[in-house]
Amino acid sequence: MNGAQSLIRTLVRSGVDVCFANPGTSEMHFVAALDSVPEMRGVLGLFEGAVTGAADGYARIAGKPAATLLHLGPGLGNGLANLHNARRAHTPVVNVVGDHATHHKKYDAPLESDIDAVAGSVSGWVRRGDQVADVGSVAAAAVAASMDPPGQVATLILAADASWDEGGQVAEPLPPRTPAAPDPQAVASVADVLRGGEPVALLIGGQACREPGLLAASRIANATGARALVETFPARLERGAGLPALDRLRYLAEQAAQQLDGVKHLIVAGTRSPVSFFAYPGKPSDLVPDGAQMHTLADPSQDVVAALEALAEEVAPDTLPTLAEPSRPVLPSGPLTANNWAEVIGALLPDGAIVSDEANTSGVALPAATAGAPRHDVLTLTGGAIGQGIPVATGAAIAAPDRPVVNLEADGSAMYTISALWTQARENLDVTTVILNNSAYAVLRVEMLRVGADLSGPAAKTLLDLSSPGLDFARIAEGMGVPSSRATTCEELAEQFRRALAEPGPHLIDAVVPPHL
Amino acid sequence: MNGAQSLIRTLVRSGVDVCFANPGTSEMHFVAALDSVPEMRGVLGLFEGAVTGAADGYARIAGKPAATLLHLGPGLGNGLANLHNARRAHTPVVNVVGDHATHHKKYDAPLESDIDAVAGSVSGWVRRGDQVADVGSVAAAAVAASMDPPGQVATLILAADASWDEGGQVAEPLPPRTPAAPDPQAVASVADVLRGGEPVALLIGGQACREPGLLAASRIANATGARALVETFPARLERGAGLPALDRLRYLAEQAAQQLDGVKHLIVAGTRSPVSFFAYPGKPSDLVPDGAQMHTLADPSQDVVAALEALAEEVAPDTLPTLAEPSRPVLPSGPLTANNWAEVIGALLPDGAIVSDEANTSGVALPAATAGAPRHDVLTLTGGAIGQGIPVATGAAIAAPDRPVVNLEADGSAMYTISALWTQARENLDVTTVILNNSAYAVLRVEMLRVGADLSGPAAKTLLDLSSPGLDFARIAEGMGVPSSRATTCEELAEQFRRALAEPGPHLIDAVVPPHL
Repeated sequence: MNGAQSLIRTLVRSGVDVCFANPGTSEMHFVAALDSVPEMRGVLGLFEGAVTGAADGYARIAGKPAATLLHLGPGLGNGLANLHNARRAHTPVVNVVGDHATHHKKYDAPLESDIDAVAGSVSGWVRRGDQVADVGSVAAAAVAASMDPPGQVATLILAADASWDEGGQVAEPLPPRTPAAPDPQAVASVADVLRGGEPVALLIGGQACREPGLLAASRIANATGARALVETFPARLERGAGLPALDRLRYLAEQAAQQLDGVKHLIVAGTRSPVSFFAYPGKPSDLVPDGAQMHTLADPSQDVVAALEALAEEVAPDTLPTLAEPSRPVLPSGPLTANNWAEVIGALLPDGAIVSDEANTSGVALPAATAGAPRHDVLTLTGGAIGQGIPVATGAAIAAPDRPVVNLEADGSAMYTISALWTQARENLDVTTVILNNSAYAVLRVEMLRVGADLSGPAAKTLLDLSSPGLDFARIAEGMGVPSSRATTCEELAEQFRRALAEPGPHLIDAVVPPHL
Repeated sequence: MNGAQSLIRTLVRSGVDVCFANPGTSEMHFVAALDSVPEMRGVLGLFEGAVTGAADGYARIAGKPAATLLHLGPGLGNGLANLHNARRAHTPVVNVVGDHATHHKKYDAPLESDIDAVAGSVSGWVRRGDQVADVGSVAAAAVAASMDPPGQVATLILAADASWDEGGQVAEPLPPRTPAAPDPQAVASVADVLRGGEPVALLIGGQACREPGLLAASRIANATGARALVETFPARLERGAGLPALDRLRYLAEQAAQQLDGVKHLIVAGTRSPVSFFAYPGKPSDLVPDGAQMHTLADPSQDVVAALEALAEEVAPDTLPTLAEPSRPVLPSGPLTANNWAEVIGALLPDGAIVSDEANTSGVALPAATAGAPRHDVLTLTGGAIGQGIPVATGAAIAAPDRPVVNLEADGSAMYTISALWTQARENLDVTTVILNNSAYAVLRVEMLRVGADLSGPAAKTLLDLSSPGLDFARIAEGMGVPSSRATTCEELAEQFRRALAEPGPHLIDAVVPPHL
């Protein structure tokens, strides 16, 4: 058995059986080894950002890591932005980066670069597999490391000779570390705060954004009057009829400040103290209101759901949560606007959908329009590195082949990793992509005003404009084998969205919408 | 004047007047400042790999750097692969990466990451502009550093507050360092080797790949019997009728070994000792033949052309160079093959063309087919990070608006940075892209055999196959506003290539060719 075979066998034994890959020469033995381990499914991406984003989306839904396969430093570089998003999502990823053979590195061949330095910027764990006999054990350690609570990118740098040499050894899975139990003192102290009668906000994140955590948070809020909020960009948020519909803390610091206005205590559970996404001249970066006290119920590496449930038991033993009633918007009609497209989605979102949400500025009306829709998961842009939505949808569809995946995607963001559509076609994934095509980097028009920069000059305007030439996403997607259409009215969007959901395989709808600004 | 304005004014004063940009919120004051300094041309890319590759292509032709504008660590990551290629090309690039405001960094906001570590992997020079008063001087230093012989990526990390604060100061250009003069002892010693009567190869690179260096190398070869060779992947190689047609050292180590077979002395000038691109089991990485002696006439930071001319004066004072005669292939007919498409290009390549060559395996027949074509420049894949060709063509066209740019592009490579086509349409650049569409990662089929991996299994085969679904590049390009067509015969390719050259603005031809393997 060579090193590559021992690697793949170890991954499979550790439960990792999907590998999103964009390989090169140094990874050829890994590719060949896929045929000797049929339990491992190799999924090809045409660009590494598609690969790493898919691994992120996969793990958010599967609850376990996928492997990646990247080619040397430049391949890692191409995958870095979506590994950054995975890092912020606390997604477990076994990030395999092929390297030159150990004896080849000193020659500084053209593709040589400092993989370790680049990997360190996104990984909680980096190790090299340089000796064939160690590859299996390093792989088992990588899987375990990726699952270390709350989850992280674990990068395994695999030397080509360790891959091709004979003498590979399959390693047994390492026992995963479980999240630290809640701290009873923290629970008691937060319970005291909640009973103290002062205005309190409870901000939850991470694993608490799924049903058990949401139920506990809603009960706590109902019993104590605390405002329960979800972190701004949750990795996976369960929503819809029958679940508590907690507001997310807003992206715009001005709006987040309103949500937290008057709060004397801010309790965080499974997330960090909230900060402004960007700095703005003269504005505070820290979103904790002046004079408010911070309390940590559970940090992201702790069992936040158990902590919330213990707290609910303490302060809300007999209180019920508030659950969203089934409710859908009426299907709107007429030309698409910046907001009514979301009502079309809300009216038609299928039961059990996974929503990869990178709608950005176009998505303002989405939460309200889908709050009473059938239950669904929302996967958001955790790290702010745009170009995540299409790959994450791709990975989510691999993880849940029986669930419809809906990708709501801003036009500017779509172009970073557009080739992930090809992987959707190749794997016949049931993903419906709706491009919100407003022909602009609309978020930057908003941000330019917020940072106090002058938007009025032609050079600045031009750099935020995507209308010259306009992007025809239906053509682009058809060029990659994805059946596509264009919608300019609510009726067209509804008809095309229904049809896309009814047919198997991927579809794309290029929805022409006006920008908010 | 704010910091951003002082930055742009300093760049312009230092001769940098093109900025390839994909900005975000932290770069908004830079964008706004473009309107106060109209001498700076902002060119938008939809993805950072398009931006950095364009900056590389621009400088290879302009002989001076462009600036980039990238958004934080993830933006730098997206641009990293083509910065890697620029590093290997010794291309001067002023790589501006926006960062959070200095007071915001400690909050570890979602987009925070270790920009310095990632930048260090591709940059010869990294500095921060954290104080508004320093931004101008740091910018002047960045331009000078980028031009340090032989040229490098100089990364300026620009804090958002240093950009928006008032108090910017325009800095004077720093005097550029000139390449070190040739070492007379090295010239004399190499001359002795050449006169010694033993088999010699002369491998030239860098600046020597333009007319004066080529002429000197040809004279030396003619006078001494040395084999003159050009490095495998020159940043910019001047070719065509009236110039010496020196062979390039081959990519495949087996073929390179043949070119160097029997050599007792290997003289390098403007390049390094040749090494195998990848490692292969049981094969040497060092391409210097056993027992041969290495001699360095000039390293890449020295004035290699002066060194070659001094050497020619010494050993070939009265010898003329051999110049390629004007000669073009006869236009072939019938279905496109893996080789005959290159004859179509050779038959029709216009005078003064710039060829961005990322044809990879499909390009085997290209050098012979174009050796006697009118004079042209060839820009090659210096660092091996695929996805360079379309962006490099884009930047080259900005640098030389009066020259036709021809981009010969492998299908797999094209998909990494396909959105650069949109920038070509937006800027109405005269670029003709010919996609060599063989529906495969054909190079990896070759490499799999060379590394001794088993290609026969279905999983391995599938991961190198791009035919399911096939990529329709004409549709993809039309979706980005580039007029496109598809060619399956030589006649179609010739007709479409002629038409594309005759019309202004960008065009794409999707040339369907069989793979070599």
